[in-house]
Amino acid sequence: MSAATASSFSDRLGDTRPGSSRPVGHPLAAYLRDLHERHAACSEGAPASYIPELTKADPNWFGVALATIDGEVYEAGDTERLFTIQSISKPFVYALALQDNGRDRVLAKIGVEPTGEAFNSISLYTDTGRPYNPMINAGAIASTGLVAGADAEERMARILALFSACAGRELTIDEDVYRSEKATGFRNFAIGYMLRNFGILASDPEPVLDVYFRQCSILVSGRDLAVMAATLANAGVCPVTGRVAIARQHVPQILAVMATCGMYDYAGEWIYRVGMPSKSGVGGGIIGVLPGQMGVSAFSPPLDARGNSVRGIRVFNDLSEDFRLHLFHATPAGRSVVRLRYDASSVASKRIRRLAEQRALAEHGKRIAVFELQGELTLFTIERVIRDVLALPEFITHLIVDFRRVFSADAPALGLWTTFLESVRHRYREVILTELASLPGLEAWFDETITASPSLSLQSLPSTDTALEVCEDQVLAQWCPDEPGRARVALEDFEICEGLAPARIEVLRDVLKRRRYRAGETILRRGEEATSLFFLTEGEASVLVDLPAGGVRRLTTCTPGMLFGEMAIVERRPRSATVRADSAVECCVLALDDFDRLTATHPDIKVKLLENFARNLSARVRRLTEEVRVLGE
Amino acid sequence: MSAATASSFSDRLGDTRPGSSRPVGHPLAAYLRDLHERHAACSEGAPASYIPELTKADPNWFGVALATIDGEVYEAGDTERLFTIQSISKPFVYALALQDNGRDRVLAKIGVEPTGEAFNSISLYTDTGRPYNPMINAGAIASTGLVAGADAEERMARILALFSACAGRELTIDEDVYRSEKATGFRNFAIGYMLRNFGILASDPEPVLDVYFRQCSILVSGRDLAVMAATLANAGVCPVTGRVAIARQHVPQILAVMATCGMYDYAGEWIYRVGMPSKSGVGGGIIGVLPGQMGVSAFSPPLDARGNSVRGIRVFNDLSEDFRLHLFHATPAGRSVVRLRYDASSVASKRIRRLAEQRALAEHGKRIAVFELQGELTLFTIERVIRDVLALPEFITHLIVDFRRVFSADAPALGLWTTFLESVRHRYREVILTELASLPGLEAWFDETITASPSLSLQSLPSTDTALEVCEDQVLAQWCPDEPGRARVALEDFEICEGLAPARIEVLRDVLKRRRYRAGETILRRGEEATSLFFLTEGEASVLVDLPAGGVRRLTTCTPGMLFGEMAIVERRPRSATVRADSAVECCVLALDDFDRLTATHPDIKVKLLENFARNLSARVRRLTEEVRVLGE
Repeated sequence: MSAATASSFSDRLGDTRPGSSRPVGHPLAAYLRDLHERHAACSEGAPASYIPELTKADPNWFGVALATIDGEVYEAGDTERLFTIQSISKPFVYALALQDNGRDRVLAKIGVEPTGEAFNSISLYTDTGRPYNPMINAGAIASTGLVAGADAEERMARILALFSACAGRELTIDEDVYRSEKATGFRNFAIGYMLRNFGILASDPEPVLDVYFRQCSILVSGRDLAVMAATLANAGVCPVTGRVAIARQHVPQILAVMATCGMYDYAGEWIYRVGMPSKSGVGGGIIGVLPGQMGVSAFSPPLDARGNSVRGIRVFNDLSEDFRLHLFHATPAGRSVVRLRYDASSVASKRIRRLAEQRALAEHGKRIAVFELQGELTLFTIERVIRDVLALPEFITHLIVDFRRVFSADAPALGLWTTFLESVRHRYREVILTELASLPGLEAWFDETITASPSLSLQSLPSTDTALEVCEDQVLAQWCPDEPGRARVALEDFEICEGLAPARIEVLRDVLKRRRYRAGETILRRGEEATSLFFLTEGEASVLVDLPAGGVRRLTTCTPGMLFGEMAIVERRPRSATVRADSAVECCVLALDDFDRLTATHPDIKVKLLENFARNLSARVRRLTEEVRVLGE
Repeated sequence: MSAATASSFSDRLGDTRPGSSRPVGHPLAAYLRDLHERHAACSEGAPASYIPELTKADPNWFGVALATIDGEVYEAGDTERLFTIQSISKPFVYALALQDNGRDRVLAKIGVEPTGEAFNSISLYTDTGRPYNPMINAGAIASTGLVAGADAEERMARILALFSACAGRELTIDEDVYRSEKATGFRNFAIGYMLRNFGILASDPEPVLDVYFRQCSILVSGRDLAVMAATLANAGVCPVTGRVAIARQHVPQILAVMATCGMYDYAGEWIYRVGMPSKSGVGGGIIGVLPGQMGVSAFSPPLDARGNSVRGIRVFNDLSEDFRLHLFHATPAGRSVVRLRYDASSVASKRIRRLAEQRALAEHGKRIAVFELQGELTLFTIERVIRDVLALPEFITHLIVDFRRVFSADAPALGLWTTFLESVRHRYREVILTELASLPGLEAWFDETITASPSLSLQSLPSTDTALEVCEDQVLAQWCPDEPGRARVALEDFEICEGLAPARIEVLRDVLKRRRYRAGETILRRGEEATSLFFLTEGEASVLVDLPAGGVRRLTTCTPGMLFGEMAIVERRPRSATVRADSAVECCVLALDDFDRLTATHPDIKVKLLENFARNLSARVRRLTEEVRVLGE
């Protein structure tokens, strides 16, 4: 099977995520083909022979598949051929037993200790008759007995539905194999009656055994198995459909029994060498799970003496060794949980500030600390975030924590974070959490936990830009209090008029035209020819751009004393953004023609205006350059 | 033990990393104190009684400690009290056996299968006499027999050295316990002779047993054990000393036997519930390892029937449950491996370009794709990077991949990446890897693998800025070829002179003073008063800033046709950077006084210069704003 098939498979399931249908040319597909070729010639082992149907298997059948948790599938060999799932059904039926009964009730009936014994050994605790674990036949039959359902039909339908949800497609049963299993499964009948004897099975064992034989006869391909394994790797969500197949809270325990008991009396050596929770079946399949990463399957009927696929074992050994997939390879996962740390003296809000304010922020902006988090929040990562916050210098008065790039957050980590915020809240004038909408559940956590806490008075704001603006305003109120109020700014108080004598101001005033706008009115529009620049004397106006997905984004807000529309004027190009009045607005407007004429009529005024404007632009270049430096660190 | 002690402990070991001595007020310290309090009243179990020395233990002794892989230690209770390590010695001696003999020779003598049996069972394979695993006494004694050394003294010294390296301090032996163990260890003598009988021990068992009794009598505190566990979590490097204590390649296998066999006949349930590779000892200690994250220890002498500390089991159950520490909780670790993806139309090199070049790059810069990677490179993460590169549009001609934030890269992932680059190299005009010096070993990999590959012609450049500049130059050569050459630029060709009639150019030329500089000569210096601006007519000059750690960093390089020193002029502030001639340089210098005088003498010239300058600054503000937007995404 080539990588092209993987692509069409994804397409068939309607997966249209970017990149998801482009594995052509991916070296991982080439690797799997090489791996397949490397072991295709192996002639060891023989297909299972305990029922006639399984002996029909061709010893040359051989496929390898790998599915990532975002639904990409790589394959080589016979990965579309269907075969019976056999014992690989055990962890998935155990999952259903856990969902139907809860962990404690299941543990009362089935243990979780490895036995070091073979797959068909009747390993029951001598006192209770409880099977040692759910991966041996006795434990698996007990699991089947715990599946809810009015009768055998309903139990079987529920099992088939769960398996199909894990594989991302509708699976079916091989009726011939089922009848063959049932006709010859004397040992399993013995186990069933023994379990009934101890009360582990609460009712007639024969319907339970009937379901058990059917579940073992479910037809899967190697690709199905890789996707089922990836569903376990993906905390129970099928990566090709995006739907929950197994309840998240049971997945660690399912993987735990696979890790200790999944490969029978080879389980210890398997976890030692290969290092993945796994399960094999006498049909020739093996699945392996790398939690949070991928699922792998191998399929080839010839088995070794322990009942594991010979080629399958070789494939997993090579794959684990070649790519260091052993789950105990240390992964220093959280070192980068704090993506960026800066203060408002280097990265400021998008609100345009007057020069005096810019200078005050350059000095006092360092009191506003911003942490941008990323990745997953767990005990391990939040421990580090908290330590970093504790290490902040004492002059910090404002703390902003940005969650935009957090892609998972577990409740315990958020709990520790809440406790921490409660303990340090009093040290800060303001603590603001931003971008909580980026991860489903964070806003609910904030409303239920943070808002409900009597000792916490925190804000949640949609963007760090807004949070910076709020904090800057507070800092400026304290450290830049002598600035004129914003209600109204006279022409002579505009920075661009700095150094113009009163008589020259009057000349300029005569050139300007006074205009008023209502709240919500559009003052200038993106794409228009630029014919004038605006002195904002009263009210507030926002600079807006359209978003590709619809809606608008605020680039900045102008307050009295500022210019807008000036960049289009100096660059002589169309307006690059729209400006809309947020409140009632008054502007003095300088027409481009009048501005041009100033060169001849009042060159000294024009030079002064241009010098002041260049100074303002120069300060902005300086500030943006610093911001690029910090963001790029 | 309070968190303050953790801090002084770190200090004592000379750990001066930032934040490392500031856990005061950390909620994790408070959590551990609560956890300790929660279980302090438990009265179940009894201290080990098989030797008189152990019965002297106070049942109230109880400590909990947690050490992160970056060396932070959190503690509660009796974490400084010394006790004997007992069976927790087993994984560490097994580590030494692996280092001394290699995996295959050790596997030939000691199996790795769990038995489901008690700690002192004599579980040997009936055919070979090989102990089932190294965590039961038989396997542990066999491990001790595999430790290299001329005699028992040397073996013991090597064991003590390895344990001390793991704990980050010099450990000692409790001679009383050792003598007591030796005087009553009849069952272990029996095991030793049985192992000698099968040839698993190659020589007289008594010296081996003597070492075994000593290794079990090594004195450790709860804090020592947490650090030893963290050493295993940290791939063998002791987190408080930063030194290698155990060879990295053996750590996954040590953790594997702890996972399947570490808790005797409770191992299956332990990994099911707690989900950490662990080991317990009859002294009352338990360690747990979360690979890549932290090590945990609990210590309290009262044991349950299986020989595990009662309070210890409760502590681990709670800790795992409270913080979801089960190692099979899926962690989608690699989703953010591509930190940023942009092209040179939005983020450009720091080389200042003329307006025509800026416009050409705004249009054609999208042909240069930049990927910034972060975190660890493994099969799982590199698979995604490759998929993203494969999904690039076909018009991309230049590919830059930045490794600055990659903090680990395994050889298999780099191998797959190399294979991939070989297969796609022909699609691109240029492929450049940058910042390889950020991670030890990457440069060597490049030299040995990439440079050696006949089909690969890749560059490695120190910074993405330089790589962008190289790619931009190639793109500009193709898409902006009509620009004047850079050898020498006449005054009338400067952007700032655009629109000035020839006669006015001559006026300006008379005002300017021509100056020459030798390569390496400083043209202006940071901090100087700004008294002139420079028109660079010939040669190249770099704008430099001093770095806090010494040395200088290039901010940008100016080429003929550009100005420098202009921002200090318009802002009337001291020079913010130093400018040095890279080659022989010729400038036309406009003194500030002359510039000021132009207002009166030639206002039209001054207005034109200021307008052109404002236009240039405005374009830079626009470009930097876009760059901030992309970097902040």
